[in-house]
Amino acid sequence: MSHSFQAPPRGLWLDNGRAMVLDQTQLPHRRVVFELDSFECAAEAIASMKIRGAPLIGATAAFGVALALKADGGDAALDAACALLARARPTAVNLSWAIARVRRAVETLQPAARAEAAWREALAIAREDESSNAAIGGHGVALIEALFETHQRPINVATHCNAGALATCAGGTALAPVYAACAQGLPVHVWVSETRPRNQGLLTVWELAASAVPHTLIADNAAGYLMTRGAIDLVLVGADRIAANGDVVNKVGTYLKALAARDNRIPFYVAAPSSTIDWNCATGSAVPIEERSADEVRRVRGIDPNGQTHDLRMADSGTAAVNPAFDVTRADLVTAIICERGIAKPRELSQWSTR
Amino acid sequence: MSHSFQAPPRGLWLDNGRAMVLDQTQLPHRRVVFELDSFECAAEAIASMKIRGAPLIGATAAFGVALALKADGGDAALDAACALLARARPTAVNLSWAIARVRRAVETLQPAARAEAAWREALAIAREDESSNAAIGGHGVALIEALFETHQRPINVATHCNAGALATCAGGTALAPVYAACAQGLPVHVWVSETRPRNQGLLTVWELAASAVPHTLIADNAAGYLMTRGAIDLVLVGADRIAANGDVVNKVGTYLKALAARDNRIPFYVAAPSSTIDWNCATGSAVPIEERSADEVRRVRGIDPNGQTHDLRMADSGTAAVNPAFDVTRADLVTAIICERGIAKPRELSQWSTR
Repeated sequence: MSHSFQAPPRGLWLDNGRAMVLDQTQLPHRRVVFELDSFECAAEAIASMKIRGAPLIGATAAFGVALALKADGGDAALDAACALLARARPTAVNLSWAIARVRRAVETLQPAARAEAAWREALAIAREDESSNAAIGGHGVALIEALFETHQRPINVATHCNAGALATCAGGTALAPVYAACAQGLPVHVWVSETRPRNQGLLTVWELAASAVPHTLIADNAAGYLMTRGAIDLVLVGADRIAANGDVVNKVGTYLKALAARDNRIPFYVAAPSSTIDWNCATGSAVPIEERSADEVRRVRGIDPNGQTHDLRMADSGTAAVNPAFDVTRADLVTAIICERGIAKPRELSQWSTR
Repeated sequence: MSHSFQAPPRGLWLDNGRAMVLDQTQLPHRRVVFELDSFECAAEAIASMKIRGAPLIGATAAFGVALALKADGGDAALDAACALLARARPTAVNLSWAIARVRRAVETLQPAARAEAAWREALAIAREDESSNAAIGGHGVALIEALFETHQRPINVATHCNAGALATCAGGTALAPVYAACAQGLPVHVWVSETRPRNQGLLTVWELAASAVPHTLIADNAAGYLMTRGAIDLVLVGADRIAANGDVVNKVGTYLKALAARDNRIPFYVAAPSSTIDWNCATGSAVPIEERSADEVRRVRGIDPNGQTHDLRMADSGTAAVNPAFDVTRADLVTAIICERGIAKPRELSQWSTR
């Protein structure tokens, strides 16, 4: 496959100075592009999951602050935009990290100078995201290479949710090592869990197909079985927040995969930029876990033979349902964390602390 | 809730001497009843999952053999019917157990006498299923009672798939202790995993709602998170086959729940009649694991606002997908097995061997 490998699609890009994103709620059924044209638009895109993935949430919020300042550079406008954007989703720490970074870059400036400086900072965040992911790919591909040296056959990587290019401005986190392997001609195959209830696994399938990376879709329930049968060599997932002790908060279901990986002695790696580490959270239990609408569990989206998308009811609207969006994978279940600075065991994370 | 508790619906019943079942592929959206009127109909119902659940598969196959002999009592017809029915699904051992039992009851008889004897044996299997489940409920309710004594609040039971009344002729296996608790006025609440890709959790929701048993639907991914947060006191699942060493083959995803239960020190019980124990399988790895159509993973069934059911495509039909229907939960992950004879640790199963 490596000869036909294509660079994956981008999660955010500039078009004549406008910040463009894909409406990920329409994927994989339809490719709908829209412009982030106001901070309200950015906040709504994050809250509605039109854009999702911790690094892309951060970059989108950064552009959101810049857009707010373009309309009104005053302190009140800055405060209001930062507050609205920060409330859009609770778990990914990249959101508050990016907002704080843009704010720091502009708050001592005159109101008239803020918009341009904020846009520059947002662009820097987006560019650093891309280069971080390239570095993650470079560090992580060594793991795939070492497995290939041992097995001399395609290396089977399991992932969860979408921590690919679509979760970032470009390149992906968990999938960056996979793309780097493909670019180098290392044979790799990705097992993709559908990731109910939002089915972000289908985003992963979409971008892997676009890049001609071999992959297979499975129900979330099947990941453990495949591990017991030797079908998986390596688990690579992203993160929405990493606590100072190395506990990893990621898409709900990650914890179950980590337990199965340990039970089958399969290495379990988490790939994320260092902006995902929250030094203010001592452990994963301090991280707020988003509870989303019960309707996401009761309903499902699909496409009919005429190409129309529908949201169908599976369970009665009176059915009680609970829908936590994330879970906590304890540090002891994580083999190591891959960030742009390198690969570290969870207990050694503090080497990356800049405090 | 206990004052409004209703006996759950039956999975199979007699109506003027005809064996009636529900088309479970239409539930929870529509209640469609049909008669098992030939062995071909019984085999098709099993293969297409119109009827499913290990004990109900066994009883349906037994009636299938009887129906075949009604049409033709000869040896060739008996052989053909048994062969077709035995091939309908590979994993649940209750299927071959029930077929062998009816065959033994009739094979030494004259062809003309076989149909009546076979029907009698099928009825006996159905009645024993019901009484086995009542016994399982009686043994298992003690676990819920003990937890209630300790906690003095509603006891939270997590289950997987449907091992309820709909998986049996009547009463359920994993849900039998829950129904027994409700009948006794013990407060209980059931966490129901949707059980992708076939969503049998919605069957569980349907029968719990019909019986007024408090319950909450969750995505399969959420079960581990809930256990880490203390939301689950006890896991109760069914089984499709139990190996002689106590390894349990059950709906795919059961293994992940068992790992999470162990990690959180939550008792993990398997409830099944002794006919589910396969003394000829030394361990779970000897059990054939059914691989079902990739389309079950690519597609989903739901209901539109007009009450019409649709099968919608989620992933492209060109997407590779793998769909194992079961997994193996090792004996060391199972607290104990509840059968009609009592409760035993997996390693002590041999006390129930009749060999």
